Amino acid sequence: MPNRLKVSLEDIFKPIDSHLKNVDEAIPEILKTKIPLMDMSSLHLFKKGGKKIRASLVILSSGLNGEIPNDIIDIAAAVEIFHGATLIHDDIIDQAFLRRGNVSVSSEWGSKVAVLIGDFMHVRALQTILGNGKSLLVDELLAAALDMFKGEIYQIEFSGIDVINKDHYFKIIELKTAIFMGTCAKLGAMKAEMPDKERDNLFQFGLNLGRAFQIIDDTFDYVEEDIIGKDTGNDFRNGKITLPLLYLLETISNEEKEMLINSIKSPSEEAWDKVKLLIKKNKAIGHCMDIAEGYMKKALPFLDAFPASVYKEKLVDLAGFLIDRVY
Amino acid sequence: MPNRLKVSLEDIFKPIDSHLKNVDEAIPEILKTKIPLMDMSSLHLFKKGGKKIRASLVILSSGLNGEIPNDIIDIAAAVEIFHGATLIHDDIIDQAFLRRGNVSVSSEWGSKVAVLIGDFMHVRALQTILGNGKSLLVDELLAAALDMFKGEIYQIEFSGIDVINKDHYFKIIELKTAIFMGTCAKLGAMKAEMPDKERDNLFQFGLNLGRAFQIIDDTFDYVEEDIIGKDTGNDFRNGKITLPLLYLLETISNEEKEMLINSIKSPSEEAWDKVKLLIKKNKAIGHCMDIAEGYMKKALPFLDAFPASVYKEKLVDLAGFLIDRVY
Repeated sequence: MPNRLKVSLEDIFKPIDSHLKNVDEAIPEILKTKIPLMDMSSLHLFKKGGKKIRASLVILSSGLNGEIPNDIIDIAAAVEIFHGATLIHDDIIDQAFLRRGNVSVSSEWGSKVAVLIGDFMHVRALQTILGNGKSLLVDELLAAALDMFKGEIYQIEFSGIDVINKDHYFKIIELKTAIFMGTCAKLGAMKAEMPDKERDNLFQFGLNLGRAFQIIDDTFDYVEEDIIGKDTGNDFRNGKITLPLLYLLETISNEEKEMLINSIKSPSEEAWDKVKLLIKKNKAIGHCMDIAEGYMKKALPFLDAFPASVYKEKLVDLAGFLIDRVY
Repeated sequence: MPNRLKVSLEDIFKPIDSHLKNVDEAIPEILKTKIPLMDMSSLHLFKKGGKKIRASLVILSSGLNGEIPNDIIDIAAAVEIFHGATLIHDDIIDQAFLRRGNVSVSSEWGSKVAVLIGDFMHVRALQTILGNGKSLLVDELLAAALDMFKGEIYQIEFSGIDVINKDHYFKIIELKTAIFMGTCAKLGAMKAEMPDKERDNLFQFGLNLGRAFQIIDDTFDYVEEDIIGKDTGNDFRNGKITLPLLYLLETISNEEKEMLINSIKSPSEEAWDKVKLLIKKNKAIGHCMDIAEGYMKKALPFLDAFPASVYKEKLVDLAGFLIDRVY
């Protein structure tokens, strides 16, 4: 299954293939310090490439009115580095052992190195964008980063099953994921010097794409492992309450609800099996995917006013791919 | 003893008293998000004020040619916030329970919150400086931050007693502390639109002050607790090798050296007592303070070319105070 995912993405990204290769080459150039421990730990995450969805958003968006600007690569590499830094910090927080099919930085070198190297990568990303001579772009990235951190803190604040509701959930995913993806699209637009209206449209496109993306990610954590080909149940085990559980709580009987809340509060493997049954019985996956699809459908019209181009086509494909990747 | 320190600093800072009060007021304004957990955890560190040496460097430096610019407060608050973020991340790394006489952020809310709130504060600090309309200042701060992280990683890389030597130590303190303090002074100069030569002079002043400052800090960790009025031996217990130990290794007999290296490798309380005796016997404190004083004397001539003013006088006092605070 992961193979199918990779092949399709490769197909979508074909028109910007050489750009993405340049991003892959730019990342180590930007991060290189000649301090061995730094170089190893900062590049570790990029060894297996990653999907580079955010870099692609920057690049594709920047090409919507014709040519992709030559120096877009730095901006695309910078958002990948910034995002990577955040993943490294997340893995300290979640004590995650694996990331992108590889040992996480915090597992390999400890949280000491992981805190510092994430800080370093944040700073290098900002420096790269500033070096690109666009302090307005830095403003955008910083504002998006701020929302991202707010979203993560929100998620901690509203982590208890007794306090979180759907409104909180949608607020969290907006802050944590969607605004950053909207900003990636907007950075491309800004770099290509598009007018305000088009910048806003691309921001809205990325924002709704990001909402769908996060909902899908959260939902896949409740899909049967053999369907999806990766570990599931991580959010449940970490007490992270996402849309599938919030949907169940609205749907199931009072008796089941009591059982579910107890399972959430003490997430054993036995509890996980019970939760999976409830998910199946109540078609929670399908329901959540419908909501994600709704956001995707909201995203697409924001591309309408752009002229037909291979980049526009690929942005549409990207949206379709994210919804479609398993179902 | 801490009281004496506070009174003296207050005296030095009297001419910029109202500026520092404005910094104290600006910090919560800058950090306020209305998310309770964020506001509590980001402001926690500033509750007891802190010495604000970096903010003072910015403010005093900016006044050296006459008036302090009106909007210097944001820059001074931003460097304090940036520095504070780094302290919060350091306390995760060192698992420190106390900071500024208060429970550390990571002890109070866990490393999850501490990683995120530090990231948030880094970003808010940069945003504040950008909002101040000076992207050149951001360049400077980012470059200094980068060196700071490099210094911390260096310190991890050269943490073993078998690999570290004095050259590494001086490189570490330059990267970790001195460049950031040099940059604080330079930021003041830039904000006041001083010519390059004066910016460089102020950078060199802060750089050497910073070297002295870090050496003194490292040395005080080996002073008798009743003299200094705070916990000592923390670096030793954490296996952090600093100047006093490196001096001892150069000075003592082979037999003592073997004992010392064993003590460093397994830092028990018994080992700490032995090390304290060696420190005393070999006058290591006095030797290290002499080196610090050397840097302080190197710092002062960089102020020579500035006209006499109360701000210049106070920068000189500040240098003297740091050297003089206990001895």
